[in-house]
Amino acid sequence: MSPGEAVDEVFLVREKDLRTTRKGDLYVLCTLCDRTGHITARMWQATESIYNGIPVGGFVHVRGRTEDYRGTLQMVIDGCRPYPAEKVDLADFMPTTDKDIEQMWAELLEFLRPVKNRPLRLLLRKFVQDRDLVAAVKRAPAAMEMHHPFIGGLVEHTLNVARLAERLLPLYPHLNADLVRAGVFLHDIGKAAEMTTGTTISYTDRGELVGHITIGVILLQEKADAVAEEIGRPFPPKTLMLLQHIILSHHGAYEYGSPKLPAIPEAFFIHYLDNLDAKMWMTRNAIEEAPEPGSNFTTYLRQLDTRIYKHSDRLGEEDDEEPTGRLF
Amino acid sequence: MSPGEAVDEVFLVREKDLRTTRKGDLYVLCTLCDRTGHITARMWQATESIYNGIPVGGFVHVRGRTEDYRGTLQMVIDGCRPYPAEKVDLADFMPTTDKDIEQMWAELLEFLRPVKNRPLRLLLRKFVQDRDLVAAVKRAPAAMEMHHPFIGGLVEHTLNVARLAERLLPLYPHLNADLVRAGVFLHDIGKAAEMTTGTTISYTDRGELVGHITIGVILLQEKADAVAEEIGRPFPPKTLMLLQHIILSHHGAYEYGSPKLPAIPEAFFIHYLDNLDAKMWMTRNAIEEAPEPGSNFTTYLRQLDTRIYKHSDRLGEEDDEEPTGRLF
Amino acid sequence: MSPGEAVDEVFLVREKDLRTTRKGDLYVLCTLCDRTGHITARMWQATESIYNGIPVGGFVHVRGRTEDYRGTLQMVIDGCRPYPAEKVDLADFMPTTDKDIEQMWAELLEFLRPVKNRPLRLLLRKFVQDRDLVAAVKRAPAAMEMHHPFIGGLVEHTLNVARLAERLLPLYPHLNADLVRAGVFLHDIGKAAEMTTGTTISYTDRGELVGHITIGVILLQEKADAVAEEIGRPFPPKTLMLLQHIILSHHGAYEYGSPKLPAIPEAFFIHYLDNLDAKMWMTRNAIEEAPEPGSNFTTYLRQLDTRIYKHSDRLGEEDDEEPTGRLF
Amino acid sequence: MSPGEAVDEVFLVREKDLRTTRKGDLYVLCTLCDRTGHITARMWQATESIYNGIPVGGFVHVRGRTEDYRGTLQMVIDGCRPYPAEKVDLADFMPTTDKDIEQMWAELLEFLRPVKNRPLRLLLRKFVQDRDLVAAVKRAPAAMEMHHPFIGGLVEHTLNVARLAERLLPLYPHLNADLVRAGVFLHDIGKAAEMTTGTTISYTDRGELVGHITIGVILLQEKADAVAEEIGRPFPPKTLMLLQHIILSHHGAYEYGSPKLPAIPEAFFIHYLDNLDAKMWMTRNAIEEAPEPGSNFTTYLRQLDTRIYKHSDRLGEEDDEEPTGRLF
Amino acid sequence: MSPGEAVDEVFLVREKDLRTTRKGDLYVLCTLCDRTGHITARMWQATESIYNGIPVGGFVHVRGRTEDYRGTLQMVIDGCRPYPAEKVDLADFMPTTDKDIEQMWAELLEFLRPVKNRPLRLLLRKFVQDRDLVAAVKRAPAAMEMHHPFIGGLVEHTLNVARLAERLLPLYPHLNADLVRAGVFLHDIGKAAEMTTGTTISYTDRGELVGHITIGVILLQEKADAVAEEIGRPFPPKTLMLLQHIILSHHGAYEYGSPKLPAIPEAFFIHYLDNLDAKMWMTRNAIEEAPEPGSNFTTYLRQLDTRIYKHSDRLGEEDDEEPTGRLF
Amino acid sequence: MSPGEAVDEVFLVREKDLRTTRKGDLYVLCTLCDRTGHITARMWQATESIYNGIPVGGFVHVRGRTEDYRGTLQMVIDGCRPYPAEKVDLADFMPTTDKDIEQMWAELLEFLRPVKNRPLRLLLRKFVQDRDLVAAVKRAPAAMEMHHPFIGGLVEHTLNVARLAERLLPLYPHLNADLVRAGVFLHDIGKAAEMTTGTTISYTDRGELVGHITIGVILLQEKADAVAEEIGRPFPPKTLMLLQHIILSHHGAYEYGSPKLPAIPEAFFIHYLDNLDAKMWMTRNAIEEAPEPGSNFTTYLRQLDTRIYKHSDRLGEEDDEEPTGRLF
Repeated sequence: MSPGEAVDEVFLVREKDLRTTRKGDLYVLCTLCDRTGHITARMWQATESIYNGIPVGGFVHVRGRTEDYRGTLQMVIDGCRPYPAEKVDLADFMPTTDKDIEQMWAELLEFLRPVKNRPLRLLLRKFVQDRDLVAAVKRAPAAMEMHHPFIGGLVEHTLNVARLAERLLPLYPHLNADLVRAGVFLHDIGKAAEMTTGTTISYTDRGELVGHITIGVILLQEKADAVAEEIGRPFPPKTLMLLQHIILSHHGAYEYGSPKLPAIPEAFFIHYLDNLDAKMWMTRNAIEEAPEPGSNFTTYLRQLDTRIYKHSDRLGEEDDEEPTGRLF
Repeated sequence: MSPGEAVDEVFLVREKDLRTTRKGDLYVLCTLCDRTGHITARMWQATESIYNGIPVGGFVHVRGRTEDYRGTLQMVIDGCRPYPAEKVDLADFMPTTDKDIEQMWAELLEFLRPVKNRPLRLLLRKFVQDRDLVAAVKRAPAAMEMHHPFIGGLVEHTLNVARLAERLLPLYPHLNADLVRAGVFLHDIGKAAEMTTGTTISYTDRGELVGHITIGVILLQEKADAVAEEIGRPFPPKTLMLLQHIILSHHGAYEYGSPKLPAIPEAFFIHYLDNLDAKMWMTRNAIEEAPEPGSNFTTYLRQLDTRIYKHSDRLGEEDDEEPTGRLF
Repeated sequence: MSPGEAVDEVFLVREKDLRTTRKGDLYVLCTLCDRTGHITARMWQATESIYNGIPVGGFVHVRGRTEDYRGTLQMVIDGCRPYPAEKVDLADFMPTTDKDIEQMWAELLEFLRPVKNRPLRLLLRKFVQDRDLVAAVKRAPAAMEMHHPFIGGLVEHTLNVARLAERLLPLYPHLNADLVRAGVFLHDIGKAAEMTTGTTISYTDRGELVGHITIGVILLQEKADAVAEEIGRPFPPKTLMLLQHIILSHHGAYEYGSPKLPAIPEAFFIHYLDNLDAKMWMTRNAIEEAPEPGSNFTTYLRQLDTRIYKHSDRLGEEDDEEPTGRLF
Repeated sequence: MSPGEAVDEVFLVREKDLRTTRKGDLYVLCTLCDRTGHITARMWQATESIYNGIPVGGFVHVRGRTEDYRGTLQMVIDGCRPYPAEKVDLADFMPTTDKDIEQMWAELLEFLRPVKNRPLRLLLRKFVQDRDLVAAVKRAPAAMEMHHPFIGGLVEHTLNVARLAERLLPLYPHLNADLVRAGVFLHDIGKAAEMTTGTTISYTDRGELVGHITIGVILLQEKADAVAEEIGRPFPPKTLMLLQHIILSHHGAYEYGSPKLPAIPEAFFIHYLDNLDAKMWMTRNAIEEAPEPGSNFTTYLRQLDTRIYKHSDRLGEEDDEEPTGRLF
Repeated sequence: MSPGEAVDEVFLVREKDLRTTRKGDLYVLCTLCDRTGHITARMWQATESIYNGIPVGGFVHVRGRTEDYRGTLQMVIDGCRPYPAEKVDLADFMPTTDKDIEQMWAELLEFLRPVKNRPLRLLLRKFVQDRDLVAAVKRAPAAMEMHHPFIGGLVEHTLNVARLAERLLPLYPHLNADLVRAGVFLHDIGKAAEMTTGTTISYTDRGELVGHITIGVILLQEKADAVAEEIGRPFPPKTLMLLQHIILSHHGAYEYGSPKLPAIPEAFFIHYLDNLDAKMWMTRNAIEEAPEPGSNFTTYLRQLDTRIYKHSDRLGEEDDEEPTGRLF
Repeated sequence: MSPGEAVDEVFLVREKDLRTTRKGDLYVLCTLCDRTGHITARMWQATESIYNGIPVGGFVHVRGRTEDYRGTLQMVIDGCRPYPAEKVDLADFMPTTDKDIEQMWAELLEFLRPVKNRPLRLLLRKFVQDRDLVAAVKRAPAAMEMHHPFIGGLVEHTLNVARLAERLLPLYPHLNADLVRAGVFLHDIGKAAEMTTGTTISYTDRGELVGHITIGVILLQEKADAVAEEIGRPFPPKTLMLLQHIILSHHGAYEYGSPKLPAIPEAFFIHYLDNLDAKMWMTRNAIEEAPEPGSNFTTYLRQLDTRIYKHSDRLGEEDDEEPTGRLF
């Protein structure tokens, strides 16, 4: 949207406020959302009954127009009425991956197929056959804000790491490929219970107090116990221990919430690929989200401790290419 | 070598010392090297003239035997005489890559071939056509101790990073591939002047006081100036700036000697791949170098702040595999 | 033991080495242990068959004498012969608490008795009725070296924290006492599987790669699952979450291996009491272990980043007391 | 107060501002305080003479009403006139402990009574008999914002630490109880001169430039000198040194302003109890101050580096209790 | 300027914004600058054509008046019209040193005169004879905000460090004075290309991605190459290396962007003098810029991690002096 | 001393040990000191009565010779007998400044002479007239090991800082010169009681537990109290506060034991000059103490986190000087 456009759409209401102008007139100030983001909106000449009729956490059909307010886009509401939640698809009001989740999931399962170790195969089956868990995984974001913060983000990020691993495993043949494949699949799986995606992405109490690393370890234990029951003997403890270690250490440093530092080659491998994909998203997103004109840099990004230069994609006016024949 | 073996070989002498036993007898204590490492050796019943005849930094033909001393292998010399330096190949006394350096170099040049940008191609040609520099690069280790600390190590490590990049570039199409290829090639090139590999790997004065990051930037400037002279106009400043930035930021953190943090996607990409390959070498080497029996862990490694578990390569007695058909 | 004493005792052999003097005579150098500590011992005029007869990890009956070697006590062995492991009590050769473990355990159970919440009571019962676990807990040390590093140390330390909590709970009535009691009992319980106490205290592979914090959380999950099965409905998730949080956060800082920082009053309470008891042990032990004469300070203690002053227990010659009547 | 209430009260004026609306009308914006906190207030249709009549740092009698402004309570003033400072009790306009200061002080003195060491008793007497100092101590807060930031806060906090120590001393009989009692009493005493409590709590210049730790040490020296004069010989230097050390080290870490780390058991003991009581206040206060509904967590607290979960006091719907008979 | 003054002046326009009041009237909000700073200004009853006529980055002649808005000075514009850039001196709209730049430059050259080493003299000549570089140096600030952030600031700061060095060199005769003189002159020279001073001070892309330390090293290399060409042999490599080291290490710590720590006495010397002069400016400026009345302290300064006490210049009412004759 | 020299001198005995060779012969191992340092010495064919006759902490007259032992100089004692302590000057056996202490002290007093402020002059007089304190100051080292670690080191270092200040004060006329002069004199004065210099430099108990910063503040208070008594009114509190602040903050960072960070310009000034002089000593000493040949660098110095390059004093073979006429 740009300033001066007419609006005639359904939005999710995140916040509302009834205000008085200095002249004593009432107006409503509220925050409206759809899957592309959120906007501040004002409705002048409001009444208390209009105000009361706006459902926070619910939906409204709005008519109005956009305008520029101190460089930020805002909306002026001419009229609005509640809209039944049954008639909307919640996903339309939440940021969502632009890829096909089912297709990504299928590719992720393909990545697991080469796993040879039998107990590991049984374990992975337990995860994949847990419908509730899989549904939650498919819905989960990869983070609140840092990277892939949208529905389907967890699957998208995990698949990216899987693709990286698939391509690099042949270069490090001493790595235990079974362990890497299972580790990639499981490293962030606790995120399915760390965040909720109702009408906003937010941490669950358990996410805040326990965290996805420990939740992942508990899920892993649960599935290993189920395998043990199936095969009538304990799940191989060493295998379990190594998978636990990969989950615990994948943040790579204590200050990022890993209670153990990587201590097997496979844990280092996953840690770096995980980090690489996150940073690729963060830098690309920072550049795309940065306002078009003006500075050659994005704003300062706390998580990267720097601003990002926006134009490394082209080498400038000198971008004359030559046929890539023999170089030397 | 194991304790109790007979020795009849040529060694490089690193240190020597003339000592007196409590009974007044003289003996020689010295450190001998070949490309596999170094060993402490003693020669009992020595004389001053024997001692004087042992050339530090030179070579000796030694006869004797090995023995265990407090858990460490040592050597007892029965006889030794100087050996002419002309008759040895210095490389036989220095740790050296077990790969073919020329072949690796050729593959590295292949990695550069797809570069399209003309000034970048000219720049890379300047590097590759500088015979002295190329000779130094081929000889250089990748580090004193941390990773690939042997002759040819720089080429081996750089090629590894190139292979990683080659495989991952298709997954991040928004990256500037020309910049990545040139950046990978150049990121550590200053190491060719940071260390010397005479009869030992050691920092040059310049390596210690200036460091390979800045040396690399200076080399880059020199070659860009040469291109400018060739084309009769300045080397494109933006291209130069981005390559400088990649070299400067590739350690990824101030405390590791990078004066700038990565601020373009390509710099992050190279930083993580560089780091990944270094860690893969470090963990693998730590496991291989660890004494066979006893603990399941290596000793504590300061650079990784942990001990490495040695047996993640196999999942234990439960390693029964099944045919990797359809998993789910 | 002091220098010059005769020795006629059974010891555990930790290490042995066969050495040659410069004159070519063989001697044995070995490390011997009993529950009070370990000592370096030499046996001159040894033979290879004597050496082979000394069982590492087994026991020997030694005759000899002690002597001072560079300020350290050492032993000279005059004669030694293997001693059957069946005839010794392993605990006699391992450092062990000087308190009665069963009595401490009983007091610890008393501490749990006031817990009112029914699911919590059921949970605690599951722990206490797990014979193998309880046996391991009673045997476990509280740490490798830092504090209470001896058999029974975990129970001794946990009981100390319980006593602190028992006395302070009345002062902070807003704390959830049930949660505190259960949390104190459980905070370090994973240590029962983190270390082994065979003939030495050492980390298990799982201890090193997974750690007692995560092991504790898994044990907790296992027992909560068992309660769920017993009561036919899920264990109350909020209760479980808060106990998990207490275990996870009890080290109080990321760099000490806590993946979550304390975020409920009860977690802070347990963190400080745990820390207080550890420091009380460390300072007291440092003072007791410090060599009697010479400096008024212990050696530098890395874990406290200081030396400890040994004589704060008395206020010096001026220690004249007066009857403690009304002060002001 | 909640929105829509009528107001007819005396307030302390902290700030005032004369503003013009876009229509050119004048209005006054000011901050009013009482002991429960402060509020922003506006007076529309003001004149310059009204504005000039409002005394910053003085008192006004206000009539008006409260309203909600962007989720924050504000006040609209209908009329106000200056109120004579003589007619108010300053303490009514400053946050003050809800406990009886004299009673707390008396209990604190009881805590000191068991001190046996004569010079220490004389020293404590000097403190307690210094009327000006005692008056300042009773008035002082324990901190600007962190914990117990109100009149009487220093006594309340010190007494809390004393109660903790009283209960825990029997558990660590190797501690020097005299030193602990005196140390608890003195550890924060410099705060009496670090902050002022006129019509607001603020640092004195000396508090900012010298700090309560050093001020405390100087006060201690002054009183020890007075004892020396009384007894005709120097105050026992070791006793003085140990008390100085306790004051200096009680923050437990350099970065919190302790120039020395704890190096006697008594200093550790006081450091942990001090910290525990501060954290108990901070967590409890954070929960009580957090707006009732909405999130289960408080806002992020910088000093604890986390948000606090507000509902650990109850274990949820499952809170069924059972009689606390024999548990196992 | 103070509130209530009439304005009739030319300003640089930094930002502008067209806004609507709630009544639908348009007004302009903009930021105006001259060399003393910047101010927010409003023009009520504006039209779109008035708004369009205001040139951002250009100049306007403004009539209006100042007023106080929430304690900040603002401006109300009554009328304004564009002003031709040709008629203004850009320097009048940028903060500029209050010293004579040419005179400072001359003194700086005097500081270099005692240099004896011939190659060093030739090198310095190359710098001084590079007209473009010298022009840029004279214009450059010493920093964006931290210290001497104005036109001429680089020369002013460098001269200050030179004066410090000139006075202290006699006290440390073991220092290599030639190296110190050249090092002082060169340490910050890269700042001439790190920032631009068009109508505002801002980082260049190269400044942000490469930084003044590396730019300085490259400039040094360029001039050393020029000397080499002149003398027909390489510039003495040791001299070059030491100068590079001084530039690289002059920030004194990795976290401040130095890729090498000082490792020669001369580098320490320059690091401390550089730092001293920066801090002298920062503290003095903080005191001068602090609003006159109220607190005895400036606001918190992040770069110094403290507030600065404003009145250490006088010792208070007790400032009675006595003739400074013999003191003891 | 170099290997092979004859020895016939008096030494201080720091340690002794009676050892047995494998053949059963006794020998004495001891550490002997004079003001130039310490050496390890052995006496073969010793008896117990010889051993008993050697006084630790006392003096012996030794005859013998030096020899090289693993690259370290050692001594072989042929004969030795006790030497009466009365006949030696203790200072001959402790490292001592090579400057004249009285002359340095006199110059330091000259530095104080320009102080104008009367109370400050009175205060300084109290210090200078305290004979015991002055005697201790003159004897004190500036540190245990870091810089100027010898008798007279405190005066030497303080005078150096005074000379720096004397020369730089004219460049920063806004500094309060009286405060700087007094602050320089006092900043380290607590070191006179922090260390003892009996037959070795070591921390006093008070030095270890309280530290020179706090001791200095207490000394200052004592002298200010004395002035107050003399003038019949309190010592000006602002002056006292600023001096306290300078002492407290002169280490410049919490982690170096300063409980307050510099917050007045004068405190920054003293902090940097103090640091500069310490580093000048450390680098110079490191270079002088480094073994002559071999590496161009000293060993790694923990306190500087680097090795020091030894040859920055000369610019190498290219050291051709030219007459320093007009440079440009």
